[in-house]
Amino acid sequence: MTPPVLDETHDPSAISWVESANAADTDFPLANLPFGIFRHDFEERPRVGIAIGDRVLDCLAATHEGLFHELDPAVRAALTSWSLNALMTLGRDDARAVRRVAHRLLRANTPEGARARAMAGDILASTDAIGMRVPAEIGDYSDFYASVHHATNVGSMFRPDNPLLPNYKWMPIGYHGRASSIVASGTPVRRPWGQVVSSPEGPPTVAPSARVDYELEVGAFVARGNRQGDTIPLARAEQHLFGLCLVNDWSARDIQQWEYQPLGPFLSKSFATTVSPWVVTLDALEPFRTPSFARPAGDPAPLPHLNDAADQASGGFGITLEVWICTATMREAGKPAERLSRGDFGGMYWTLAQMLTHHASAGCNVRAGDLIASGTVSGPERGARGCLLELAWRGQTPVTLSTGETRAFLHDGDEITLRGWCERAGFRRIGFGECSGVLGSAHA
Amino acid sequence: MTPPVLDETHDPSAISWVESANAADTDFPLANLPFGIFRHDFEERPRVGIAIGDRVLDCLAATHEGLFHELDPAVRAALTSWSLNALMTLGRDDARAVRRVAHRLLRANTPEGARARAMAGDILASTDAIGMRVPAEIGDYSDFYASVHHATNVGSMFRPDNPLLPNYKWMPIGYHGRASSIVASGTPVRRPWGQVVSSPEGPPTVAPSARVDYELEVGAFVARGNRQGDTIPLARAEQHLFGLCLVNDWSARDIQQWEYQPLGPFLSKSFATTVSPWVVTLDALEPFRTPSFARPAGDPAPLPHLNDAADQASGGFGITLEVWICTATMREAGKPAERLSRGDFGGMYWTLAQMLTHHASAGCNVRAGDLIASGTVSGPERGARGCLLELAWRGQTPVTLSTGETRAFLHDGDEITLRGWCERAGFRRIGFGECSGVLGSAHA
Repeated sequence: MTPPVLDETHDPSAISWVESANAADTDFPLANLPFGIFRHDFEERPRVGIAIGDRVLDCLAATHEGLFHELDPAVRAALTSWSLNALMTLGRDDARAVRRVAHRLLRANTPEGARARAMAGDILASTDAIGMRVPAEIGDYSDFYASVHHATNVGSMFRPDNPLLPNYKWMPIGYHGRASSIVASGTPVRRPWGQVVSSPEGPPTVAPSARVDYELEVGAFVARGNRQGDTIPLARAEQHLFGLCLVNDWSARDIQQWEYQPLGPFLSKSFATTVSPWVVTLDALEPFRTPSFARPAGDPAPLPHLNDAADQASGGFGITLEVWICTATMREAGKPAERLSRGDFGGMYWTLAQMLTHHASAGCNVRAGDLIASGTVSGPERGARGCLLELAWRGQTPVTLSTGETRAFLHDGDEITLRGWCERAGFRRIGFGECSGVLGSAHA
Repeated sequence: MTPPVLDETHDPSAISWVESANAADTDFPLANLPFGIFRHDFEERPRVGIAIGDRVLDCLAATHEGLFHELDPAVRAALTSWSLNALMTLGRDDARAVRRVAHRLLRANTPEGARARAMAGDILASTDAIGMRVPAEIGDYSDFYASVHHATNVGSMFRPDNPLLPNYKWMPIGYHGRASSIVASGTPVRRPWGQVVSSPEGPPTVAPSARVDYELEVGAFVARGNRQGDTIPLARAEQHLFGLCLVNDWSARDIQQWEYQPLGPFLSKSFATTVSPWVVTLDALEPFRTPSFARPAGDPAPLPHLNDAADQASGGFGITLEVWICTATMREAGKPAERLSRGDFGGMYWTLAQMLTHHASAGCNVRAGDLIASGTVSGPERGARGCLLELAWRGQTPVTLSTGETRAFLHDGDEITLRGWCERAGFRRIGFGECSGVLGSAHA
């Protein structure tokens, strides 16, 4: 495991000349500086950006202005690229160097900051004059199942006598997801049609899914991969993780139930997956590390290749995660969104490093830009359940909203927004921004 | 369904000025003309090629020589590209136009043929001076399970009381595969390590897989995709299929058995998948269409969106498929490879068009270059079983080779070669070339 890297970017007293970055509740203070891909309203070309308060540092413009002159030419080239894959391929050390330079450029009361501030009109974009894109060209998307609370809850609905399968505590269970249908936050999602059954034996009918759900997940983008046939030792796994985002793994539960045996979920998941646009680096998350999940007595210790003292001590990340809903009725009445749940990523049974090490343990190659998602993040309490299937317990206990509306599953027009942030005494709060999407009606 | 397109390229009397293309047993006569991506030994840059006998038409060189002058500029640009994705994106009509021009260029006794023949030294490469690549940048790989014989055989081993699940006859069951680990024929494959169990409840041990298997499959490359949220009606599905190849979906059965519940196969498949390098177009396969699988009495009719008279009449492709093995002992003794099985792709329960229509039926977008594989092609007879798991019935009836060696699963050094071809009276035999790989020993 990488030793913690606390440096000047984690200094809570540093202030930015971008005023909005100094607000106590901003997701993007000087201590965060996440990477993303944006597009100016006036041009098609995507650019690398770094979020700061309610502004975005335009890395193409800043590079052209010479503000990144101290970095290697390959790094500067990556900052003028169309996606984050080039920077991800270079790896974590180079990304760290970029973040450190950006910190100095955006800090008040430094010579570099003064120089950058003088160019603010050229190098800063306003978030309301740009569009955000999926931050990388995602070669492969893998989705895990790493919350034991989620796995137990869902398992007990579908297999009451056998909720948690015997393999669960031995390996981070995961499966291959669909890369093509990953969309950026804000993209509308269409309710899927599919085969659904009223009895487990069928016959099915074809209908719009009546059980569309969200899933609150955390995603990790891969920085630099491994060669096919090689593995990734746990102690080095985080060197291959560029940073994290929020993921809504939209799911059609009725389609899923009928299709998923014996090869796993397919169309019930592949109609859309929404990602938040800003990739929060593991460097920014360094202060918010937590010990990995404390296995209850009786649980097996991880097998040696998934067991490492540093991973146990600090392989988790304490990220508070929330799901908010805004229905069409709420929007029409001018009411604000309402919170459905709040959970903590620190309570996952497996760490991201363990997931990546497992993924490569049979020789599968991961590539820069690949996305690995955690699976639904659920805690032990009802209020910490990360999907409606669990919150409303398969429709048995629908959620009641302040409008009097109830939700067992999502209705057309529902907007789901995921939020995530980290707080710890002695450090600046940092956040992930929003991951949101409105569920639209099915095809006629 | 597209009406059959029989044209001059299917004329069995046409002969080529490339002598080897006129041999009765060549996979690549003038009637085939499959597309691939190759690399000259003297340069790194990949090029588009068209196989003809034991030669390859270098499309970059031929385009530069003006031989494709009658085609649209966008098509000529695609022929000078580094992968087949550009041609796949243009779609089947443009690929058909290329194939027709290539047919005239490579035909004897025509003005175009005479002109091309005069440039043979510049536009033809010898297959022993080039290397073949994976023919497309594969965005997503999806693997189906479309042989009812395979599904029944495997199901009866793992779920004796319930071999064929109730969904099987209602939808082409499939799952997301791993794109990153798809390799070209000839690439060595390393035996994976993984978690294996001696009892279904565990505990697992970590060891090299002792049950590595091959799976004989047919793959289809997508030509032009659909927009996310839209579907692909069955009547138009084949317009989205560029052509077919052979696929060996290497599988580690012991890893698979422990990991696959509840989300499906993951590491047991993602260590390697081998594809044959030549993409045989649906146009070349036109004479070899067959009716789709005749469902036994009592089986449900396909649901309306998976049911179409043309698909029933001619949605199958009669492709003879074989698996050959050459062990290290056989190689050392100078013995030839030995056939393990022979089957027929025409006996699949679902057609490729049905698989694609199902894939997009919930709105999942497919993209040009995506790979869809059929799942193991097994017939009702023992000799037509497409993997060792079935042939040796989970190790109970090992296969005996002429050397006296037996195989329940693969040994280190075993080379597996898939072959496929189509024959029909009144037409030239066409083939797929080879899809081969040697299983190497596990990491120390």
